Amino acid sequence: MSLEEENEEFSSNYGDVTENSKAGNWREAVEGKKWANVSDLVEEMAGSEVLIRGRVDTYRPYSSKVFVILRQGDGCKGQSTVQCVAKQSNVGVKMIKYLKQLTCESILDVIGVLVAPKDLVKGPTQKKVEIQVRKVYCVSRALARLPLGVEDAARSEADIEKSLEMGIKAVRVNQDTRLNNRFLDIRTAANQAIIHVECRTEHFFRGKLLDMGFVSIHTPKLIAGSSEGGSAVFKLDYKGQPACLAQSPQLHKQMAICGDLRRVFVVGPVFRAEDSFTHRHLCEFVGLDVEMEIHKDYSEIMDLVDELFVYMFTELNEKCKKKLEAIGKQYPFEPLKFLEKTLRLTFEEGIQMLKEAGVEVDPLGDLNTESERKLGQLVFEKYKTEFYILHRYPTAVRPFYTMPCADNPLYSNSFDVFIRGEEIMSGGQRIHIPEVLEERAVECGIDVNTISTYIDSFRYGAPLHGGFGVGLERVVMLFCALDNIRKTSLFPRDPKRLAP
Amino acid sequence: MSLEEENEEFSSNYGDVTENSKAGNWREAVEGKKWANVSDLVEEMAGSEVLIRGRVDTYRPYSSKVFVILRQGDGCKGQSTVQCVAKQSNVGVKMIKYLKQLTCESILDVIGVLVAPKDLVKGPTQKKVEIQVRKVYCVSRALARLPLGVEDAARSEADIEKSLEMGIKAVRVNQDTRLNNRFLDIRTAANQAIIHVECRTEHFFRGKLLDMGFVSIHTPKLIAGSSEGGSAVFKLDYKGQPACLAQSPQLHKQMAICGDLRRVFVVGPVFRAEDSFTHRHLCEFVGLDVEMEIHKDYSEIMDLVDELFVYMFTELNEKCKKKLEAIGKQYPFEPLKFLEKTLRLTFEEGIQMLKEAGVEVDPLGDLNTESERKLGQLVFEKYKTEFYILHRYPTAVRPFYTMPCADNPLYSNSFDVFIRGEEIMSGGQRIHIPEVLEERAVECGIDVNTISTYIDSFRYGAPLHGGFGVGLERVVMLFCALDNIRKTSLFPRDPKRLAP
Repeated sequence: MSLEEENEEFSSNYGDVTENSKAGNWREAVEGKKWANVSDLVEEMAGSEVLIRGRVDTYRPYSSKVFVILRQGDGCKGQSTVQCVAKQSNVGVKMIKYLKQLTCESILDVIGVLVAPKDLVKGPTQKKVEIQVRKVYCVSRALARLPLGVEDAARSEADIEKSLEMGIKAVRVNQDTRLNNRFLDIRTAANQAIIHVECRTEHFFRGKLLDMGFVSIHTPKLIAGSSEGGSAVFKLDYKGQPACLAQSPQLHKQMAICGDLRRVFVVGPVFRAEDSFTHRHLCEFVGLDVEMEIHKDYSEIMDLVDELFVYMFTELNEKCKKKLEAIGKQYPFEPLKFLEKTLRLTFEEGIQMLKEAGVEVDPLGDLNTESERKLGQLVFEKYKTEFYILHRYPTAVRPFYTMPCADNPLYSNSFDVFIRGEEIMSGGQRIHIPEVLEERAVECGIDVNTISTYIDSFRYGAPLHGGFGVGLERVVMLFCALDNIRKTSLFPRDPKRLAP
Repeated sequence: MSLEEENEEFSSNYGDVTENSKAGNWREAVEGKKWANVSDLVEEMAGSEVLIRGRVDTYRPYSSKVFVILRQGDGCKGQSTVQCVAKQSNVGVKMIKYLKQLTCESILDVIGVLVAPKDLVKGPTQKKVEIQVRKVYCVSRALARLPLGVEDAARSEADIEKSLEMGIKAVRVNQDTRLNNRFLDIRTAANQAIIHVECRTEHFFRGKLLDMGFVSIHTPKLIAGSSEGGSAVFKLDYKGQPACLAQSPQLHKQMAICGDLRRVFVVGPVFRAEDSFTHRHLCEFVGLDVEMEIHKDYSEIMDLVDELFVYMFTELNEKCKKKLEAIGKQYPFEPLKFLEKTLRLTFEEGIQMLKEAGVEVDPLGDLNTESERKLGQLVFEKYKTEFYILHRYPTAVRPFYTMPCADNPLYSNSFDVFIRGEEIMSGGQRIHIPEVLEERAVECGIDVNTISTYIDSFRYGAPLHGGFGVGLERVVMLFCALDNIRKTSLFPRDPKRLAP
């Protein structure tokens, strides 16, 4: 067979799938075939034809053959890669030329024969099988110059250090480049895993609460007035009325309780216009909020926190093992240490522990980030847990709607919860008596008129109740000991970042 | 025993639980006891002591006894009521006097003996048991004048008509009064059920998608520029940058697909600043959004819609029977008629059906509400379904990012979905080729610079993909054939309503 004849024979076996998916012989080639998942390929399938859609992770061209590593994200099983080998004897010289002009991150449909090579394949996650290429169609071609290399973005700090020590060039992708090109950044195995762990964290939170008789509700984000006072709010014009974005579902979830929904939770965005440029603050994040009737006191809420979070942590460890490993590969971390029955300390006990360690703090003030972290250390040394509840906070540092303690109004029926020395949650019993609520609002300098509908909702029979709020991104960040909350927000918003 | 002695004997058995839950003998009386759910009370428990917390639904005072109907919302089982009987011989004259001063909607802790009376109790949901009262503590006292009576709010239109015909005064609570006092309005059995059905609708949506390998993500609501163009947006100042509230998660869910998440869904608020004063528009509602890779064409998305919604409807009918009954009791409706395999008609077929029925519509324009409803009737008559998909919409009436049909660019790979003649969903294949996307944006009069990050995200390998968006409130409204979307939004927002 002449070279020309040979090329003719193979000419319909490759090409770019162009606009409207019309081009090439792609449609005929894939007709009636099923696309396989990379993660599903097994040795037993050796000899059979497979059709795989994946991204070009890397490729190595030789004179008469081309190796392509195809990559697939996989919701359930994490990221998978497989080696595809195109030999000139199988595909012709022109197709080899075509393959040499591929670009990383392009999406290919590869049709080939699955084989089980004698030696394990080095590199891809699929080590026992590879694909002998017959046909390749480029479904979407990536520009050759990427704003960031996915391989670079996937490298651990330790790997970068090691390369640098060995004098090998290793690109360190900085955070802004990552976030500016988030659609590329999230193609790394660690980021895919973080997003999945986040999805599961919410799923376990919901599932447990629904099992416990809670109702999932949605509260409006557009509200008149400010939802809590305190932190800054985003203001806007609502059809001629002044409005703002809810800083929490606080007031509405309490109204839902006054409406006899009994136990509710809200998952949704909360907005904070604070100028906090820290590793743990965002201007928009996902709030996990709970509000519930209680029978006697706020320990019932802490009981729930205990049961719920121990469940969530246990489920994450058991059901997201591979995902957590993928995260740890790039960002090494120790599994969270927590007790079966969550430790509870009073604020006064906490202050005392700090005092004994030489840290003086205002007994009726709030803890700053530094003393919270110090207390976390002390608690870990003494109780061997990185997850605990600190309760009976001073009334002065809590929102106006917090129920003061019956035995000492300087303290309140409230709590914070900590993971690895950082606060993730605030909660407590709410004042359900309208007169007391008004009194406290005035004491805290809040204009009672702006919250009159809220206060009025307690005038027609209000259950004893309480609840808490926690940020999804912060829980995942601290569970995985990540150093920045921007790693756990899909498209983070901070005082400077409003895109993409 | 003298009257004085008798009163002394009973004096610790009743009273208001005041501030900080300190007062009366309440704490001692409930110590070590468990609160029972009204719905859990059964004949077999007759003779035993029970402690119940509930609201005063209604009460009837007689000279020497008082009947109180206690009401409880119950997440799982719906609303339950039980009759409590306080007899002077059991509780003393002073307590009877105390009970006569109760107000409807107050919350009581009742301790008494469960009995199974010979005759069925008329009125409450618990007909075989009632409580012989021993102690009563008022946990929260409602004002005597309610802005709306819960009993009034719970009455069906038919009941009101019947009462009026019989010359009996029957209050019709109008919608604004309901919404202004939503925390009271949602105490009705129908509203409690609607909220639960909404919770379950979301739950079935999530559960099915997670089972199918989808990832739940959260997209930012604060964005630069407008998310789609077209409908009006809420604008605000974001730390000195012009920003707006996302009208849909469209652009971000597509970027997630470009980031290899493969199949994602988003549940969260979407914001529309439209001046639509209809029964089916809100300025803020809960969007259920899906985006997924496809292999060949948009029928794969319609396959998913089919499987997902048939599952959701079936689950709702099977698992929310009691809730749907409770809704139907106040707002009678026929169960939704849908096929096991969802009907698909092309837009052209729809136009043809309308034409044959004498309705002329622009073959390349959009359907208005009236012709949609008419088509719904025709489809129902011909195919016996109230749920169907209309696809291959004219390109001119779809967003710029919609993929035109390969065989005729005047039509597009898109669809709408209808329930009972009203649109609930728009979806389709998206343009994944950056050059085509730019071209279409320009044709639609969109400034390409404002969406450059979006377009750029397709330059580095973009999967064929598509998806859809649907409003949770609208699905529930139409599934239950309710006449107004404000009935299915917990705290609705329309052009005039920003509170509560």
